[in-house]
Amino acid sequence: MACAFTILTQSVSHDIALIDSNEQKLQGEMMDLQHGSVFVKSPKIQASTDYSVTANSRVCIVTAGARQKEGETRLDLVQRNTDIFKSIIPQLVKYSPNTILIIVSNPVDILTYVAWKISGLPRNRVIGSGTNLDSARFRFLISQKLNVAARSCHGWIVGEHGDTSIPVWSSVNVAGVRLMDLNPDFGKDNDKEKWASLHKQVVDSAYEVIKLKGYTSWAIGLSVSMIVSAITKNLNTLHALSTLVQGLHGVDEEVFLSVPCVIGENGITSIVKQILTKEEQEKLQKSAKLMHGIQADLKF
Amino acid sequence: MACAFTILTQSVSHDIALIDSNEQKLQGEMMDLQHGSVFVKSPKIQASTDYSVTANSRVCIVTAGARQKEGETRLDLVQRNTDIFKSIIPQLVKYSPNTILIIVSNPVDILTYVAWKISGLPRNRVIGSGTNLDSARFRFLISQKLNVAARSCHGWIVGEHGDTSIPVWSSVNVAGVRLMDLNPDFGKDNDKEKWASLHKQVVDSAYEVIKLKGYTSWAIGLSVSMIVSAITKNLNTLHALSTLVQGLHGVDEEVFLSVPCVIGENGITSIVKQILTKEEQEKLQKSAKLMHGIQADLKF
Amino acid sequence: MACAFTILTQSVSHDIALIDSNEQKLQGEMMDLQHGSVFVKSPKIQASTDYSVTANSRVCIVTAGARQKEGETRLDLVQRNTDIFKSIIPQLVKYSPNTILIIVSNPVDILTYVAWKISGLPRNRVIGSGTNLDSARFRFLISQKLNVAARSCHGWIVGEHGDTSIPVWSSVNVAGVRLMDLNPDFGKDNDKEKWASLHKQVVDSAYEVIKLKGYTSWAIGLSVSMIVSAITKNLNTLHALSTLVQGLHGVDEEVFLSVPCVIGENGITSIVKQILTKEEQEKLQKSAKLMHGIQADLKF
Amino acid sequence: MACAFTILTQSVSHDIALIDSNEQKLQGEMMDLQHGSVFVKSPKIQASTDYSVTANSRVCIVTAGARQKEGETRLDLVQRNTDIFKSIIPQLVKYSPNTILIIVSNPVDILTYVAWKISGLPRNRVIGSGTNLDSARFRFLISQKLNVAARSCHGWIVGEHGDTSIPVWSSVNVAGVRLMDLNPDFGKDNDKEKWASLHKQVVDSAYEVIKLKGYTSWAIGLSVSMIVSAITKNLNTLHALSTLVQGLHGVDEEVFLSVPCVIGENGITSIVKQILTKEEQEKLQKSAKLMHGIQADLKF
Repeated sequence: MACAFTILTQSVSHDIALIDSNEQKLQGEMMDLQHGSVFVKSPKIQASTDYSVTANSRVCIVTAGARQKEGETRLDLVQRNTDIFKSIIPQLVKYSPNTILIIVSNPVDILTYVAWKISGLPRNRVIGSGTNLDSARFRFLISQKLNVAARSCHGWIVGEHGDTSIPVWSSVNVAGVRLMDLNPDFGKDNDKEKWASLHKQVVDSAYEVIKLKGYTSWAIGLSVSMIVSAITKNLNTLHALSTLVQGLHGVDEEVFLSVPCVIGENGITSIVKQILTKEEQEKLQKSAKLMHGIQADLKF
Repeated sequence: MACAFTILTQSVSHDIALIDSNEQKLQGEMMDLQHGSVFVKSPKIQASTDYSVTANSRVCIVTAGARQKEGETRLDLVQRNTDIFKSIIPQLVKYSPNTILIIVSNPVDILTYVAWKISGLPRNRVIGSGTNLDSARFRFLISQKLNVAARSCHGWIVGEHGDTSIPVWSSVNVAGVRLMDLNPDFGKDNDKEKWASLHKQVVDSAYEVIKLKGYTSWAIGLSVSMIVSAITKNLNTLHALSTLVQGLHGVDEEVFLSVPCVIGENGITSIVKQILTKEEQEKLQKSAKLMHGIQADLKF
Repeated sequence: MACAFTILTQSVSHDIALIDSNEQKLQGEMMDLQHGSVFVKSPKIQASTDYSVTANSRVCIVTAGARQKEGETRLDLVQRNTDIFKSIIPQLVKYSPNTILIIVSNPVDILTYVAWKISGLPRNRVIGSGTNLDSARFRFLISQKLNVAARSCHGWIVGEHGDTSIPVWSSVNVAGVRLMDLNPDFGKDNDKEKWASLHKQVVDSAYEVIKLKGYTSWAIGLSVSMIVSAITKNLNTLHALSTLVQGLHGVDEEVFLSVPCVIGENGITSIVKQILTKEEQEKLQKSAKLMHGIQADLKF
Repeated sequence: MACAFTILTQSVSHDIALIDSNEQKLQGEMMDLQHGSVFVKSPKIQASTDYSVTANSRVCIVTAGARQKEGETRLDLVQRNTDIFKSIIPQLVKYSPNTILIIVSNPVDILTYVAWKISGLPRNRVIGSGTNLDSARFRFLISQKLNVAARSCHGWIVGEHGDTSIPVWSSVNVAGVRLMDLNPDFGKDNDKEKWASLHKQVVDSAYEVIKLKGYTSWAIGLSVSMIVSAITKNLNTLHALSTLVQGLHGVDEEVFLSVPCVIGENGITSIVKQILTKEEQEKLQKSAKLMHGIQADLKF
C-alpha cells in the first residue's frame, strides 16, 4: 500500500490496479485511495482478486510473500514463497505479456530469480528492488554525519539485500571527493572515524524499524516509486537493483544480486561494472554460491 | 502518519516533527521516513515525546484521541478526549505561539471548539478538518456517476462531520451547470436518479473503510496535506472546514461547524455564505444545539 | 517554446520533439532546453526540420502561423495559414497516425476546423486551445475582485476565441454560490458592481500583453501544458476547448467553437451542454455563421 | 523572466516581485504570468519600478547588467555594471535586510564580489550562479556520451564562469566509478576518447546558444530555480556556486570563484575542498589574480 500510495501522490502513474487474496482489506484500501483521488490528479484506481484487472500493465510490483516462521529454515521459507509466486507470476504475465516485473518480496534476490524462471520473461524485464533502499539508508547516514543533503552524498551498497550486503567504500564521495582519499582507513576496522559502523546500521535498519513499528513501509514505498518512475518516464537513471549477475565480478552462478543498473522503459538496459576490491568480489561470490545452493533445491 | 507522509511526498513541508506518547513506535516511524528522505527533497524529520521538538511550527496537526468504548456515551468520549487535549494543546501553543492548529481528531467539530478554548488562539487559527474529506468523497461519487474527473465535479458537504452532515444540493454543478436545474427532483427522496444515495454513501464511507481495513488513512492524509499546503503557500483557496459559525445561517451558539472557508497563511480569513434552503438551515441549527448541549457539560 | 518548456518543467512529457523551418533558432532552443535537462527529470529533447523526428507522438501541438499584415483581410490571413497548415498537418499525421492535434495558431477556431479537414482525423482528436486561456484570465480577474484563489473561482468563457467570446454569467460561482443569485444585474450593462468590465478586460488582455511585451507566452504555455497533461494522464477533466459544435445550441454549421469539453487519452470524449440564455445562443450562432462564411471561401 | 517562470511552475515560491526600469515590458510580463496563475498554485505576482514591492524577500535574484559594446574593454564593462549595481543592490538590501542575493549578471564572479561589497551583507548571503550551469552542461554531455541519465552522471566544473572554467576530471564518476580510473589519459590532450572536447563544448555552449537563438534562457532559469529551491527548502544540497574563495586552493586574493558549496536557508554554509591537481590549482590562482587586478581598478 505504501508503494501504491507513493506512486499516486508522486503522479508516477494515473492508473493503478491492486491485487490481493484478502478481498475485504483490498476493497477498503481501494476505497480509501479513491476518496483521496480528488486531492491528486484524478487517477483510476481499481482492485480485485481477479488478475484480469491488471491487464496491459506496464509495470507489475510484487510484494506478496510469507514471513519466516519460528524454526523454519531459509530454504523452507523460499519454497513456500516460490509456491506463492507460482500462483501469482503466471497470472500477471498472462494479462500483461509486455510487463516489467519488480519484485519486492524477501529474500528479494532469490525470489527475483524465481520470478524470472517462472515468468519466462527476458532478464531485463525482471528486476529486484535489491539494495536500492539499502543504498538510500547508507546515503542518509552519510548525510547525517557530514551535514550535507543525502542527495549530494553518494555511495553504493551492492550484493545480497540483507545481512551480507556489501558497501563499496571506494564509491563513497561528495562532489567527486572520495572519502577514501581523505582517510586511508575509511571503512576499515581500524578507522578512527568509524565509517564501517554506518554499514552495520544499514543492515540493522530494517530489523530496527520492524522491531519498533512492526514493519517497514514509507521508505520502501518511496524506493519502489522511484524505480517505477524511471521505467515509465524512461529516465535511464542508475539504481542498485537485483539483476542476473552471472559472468560479472567472477560470479559463475545463475543468480540475481544488486549492482548499479541503468533503468528505463525497457527495464534494465545496462550495468555499471564497479571497481571492487578482491575482498568485495569474494563476498559477492560467496553470496552467489550460497544462493545458488538454495536455488538448486527449489521445486518449481 | 498518512498526514506526515503525504506532506513529505508532496513537498508541502521540508521540516516535520512527530510527537507521540509511544516512543518506540515513534522512533520506528521517524526512521522509516528518514530512510526514504533520499527519494524526496531531503527534508528534516524529527520525532520526540518532548514537545520542544515542535518549537516554532507554522502548523500543528492534532490527530490524537481516544476511540469510543462500547457502551460509552458521546459526552463521556468527548470528555476523555478533552482531557487528552488538555495535555497536548497548551504544550503546542507554548512552543509555537504563532502556530495554526488543525484538528483532525473526532468528533472533530466539538474537539476543534475544545482546542480553541484551551489554546486561547484567535478563531482564525484553530481549524477543524471538518467536512473537507466528506466533500471530496461526495465529488468522487458524483465523478463516478457522470464519468467526469472529480476535479471538475463541484459539490459541498457542510455542517457536522459525520452522520448529520448536509449536502448542499444547490452547489452541485459541472462547468457551472447546476444539476438541480436539469433535474427538479435532484437530491430529493422521489428523485429517479437517486442522487440522495450519494450522500448516504459519503456518510457510510468512513464506517465502510473502517469495517474493511480497520481504519482510514490515505484520503484523510491527502485532505490534511492540502489544507496545510493552502496555509504554507498562502493559497487563499476554499475548503469545507470546521470554524466558529456563531451568527451564520441562524446559528446562535458558540459552536464549530464546516462551511466553505478561504484559507491562507493566517488561517481562515473569510467564509462563503452559501444560499441554504430552510431545511438545510434547520439541520445546521439542530446540529449546533446538540453540540452546544454537550459542550456545556464539558469540564475544562 | 513556452509550451515546450512548461511541459518539461511540469513533467508532463519526458520526450519532446521540436519542429521549425528556422533550423538555426531551432538548434539554439533545443540546446538551451537540453542544458537544463539535468535540473528536471532527464527528458529526451530532439529538434529537426524533418518531421520524422515526431514519429509516434501521442500529441502534436501546432503553434505555427502567419500574423495579420497591414491591410490584409481576415480571409486572406486564414488562407495564408491554411496554406501553411497544408504543409504541416499531413506530415504530422503521416508520422503519428494515432496522434491528437492541439491547434494553438490564430484564428484558432477556423484553423482547428482547417486542421480537422486536412488531417482526416476523427473530430475527438483535433482540438483547439480555444477559450481555455480566456476562461483562466476571467477566473484570475474574478479572483482579484473577490480576494479568493483563482482555483476556487469558477466561470466559463465560451464561443469564438477573441473579441466575440461569450462569458456565461450563469456559470460564475464560488463554492456553488452563483454570483447571479446575489446580484440580479450581474454581468448586465446596468450592474453597479460592473462585472461586465471583466469580460472586456479578458478580451483586451491579449492585445494589452502584446502591446506591452510584444507577444504572449507564459499563460498560453501553461494553458497548453494543462491540456496535454489531461490527455497523457487520461484525466477526463473539463476545459473550454474548440471542438465541432454543429447541432449544439442551435448552431447548424460545420464549425469549431469553444464549449466545456471532457478531455482524456482519446481527446475530447464529451461536451457539457450549458444552459445558455437566448442572447448567448444568438451570439454563438452569429459567430458560427461568420466563420462558416470564411470557411466556405477557403481553398484546401 | 525564465527564472521567474521556472520558479512559479516548479512551485519554488508562491510570492514573486519583478523589478525593471522598463515599466511597459514589466507590466506585460506580470500580466502574462498572472493570467497563467490559474494553472499553477495561485501565486502572488507583483511588478514595479519601485523597489518597495520587494520588501521582505527571502531571496533576491539579480540578472540586470549591460552587455559588452564593440571595442569596450572588460574593465569598462565591469565598471558600467558596477554603476548599475550601485543603483540596484542598496535598494534591495534596504527593503530586505535579511535577504540572500543571487547574482546571475555577467561577468558573474566579479559582479558577485561587487554585490558583496556594495551590499555589506555577510559572505554566506551573496552568491553567484557561477558554474552551476556549466556543471549541468558538462553532465549533460557526459550523459549523451555514456547513454546514462545526466542525473546519474557526476562531474564538476569550478573556477571562473566562462572561458577559463576548470573541469575537475577526478570528480567525473558514474556510480562512484571514476572515469579517470578506467582511462589513464582521461581529460588529457592525448586522450583517444577525447573527453577534453566536452569541456570545450561547455565553454562554447553559451556562445553557441546566443549565436543560434540570440540569448540563453531556459537552462539558466532552471539552474537559478534550483538554487532558490535549495535556500527556501533548506536542502543543504551541493552546487558549484561563486563564493569568496580567499584562502582556498592557494588563492590569496579577495575574489569570488565557483567551488562546490553546501546551500540552505542561510545561504552558503560550507565549501567542499576538492582534491585539485597542481595544474588545476594554478589555473584557479591565475583567474584569481586577473580578477583581482580588475577589481582593484573599480570605482565604487
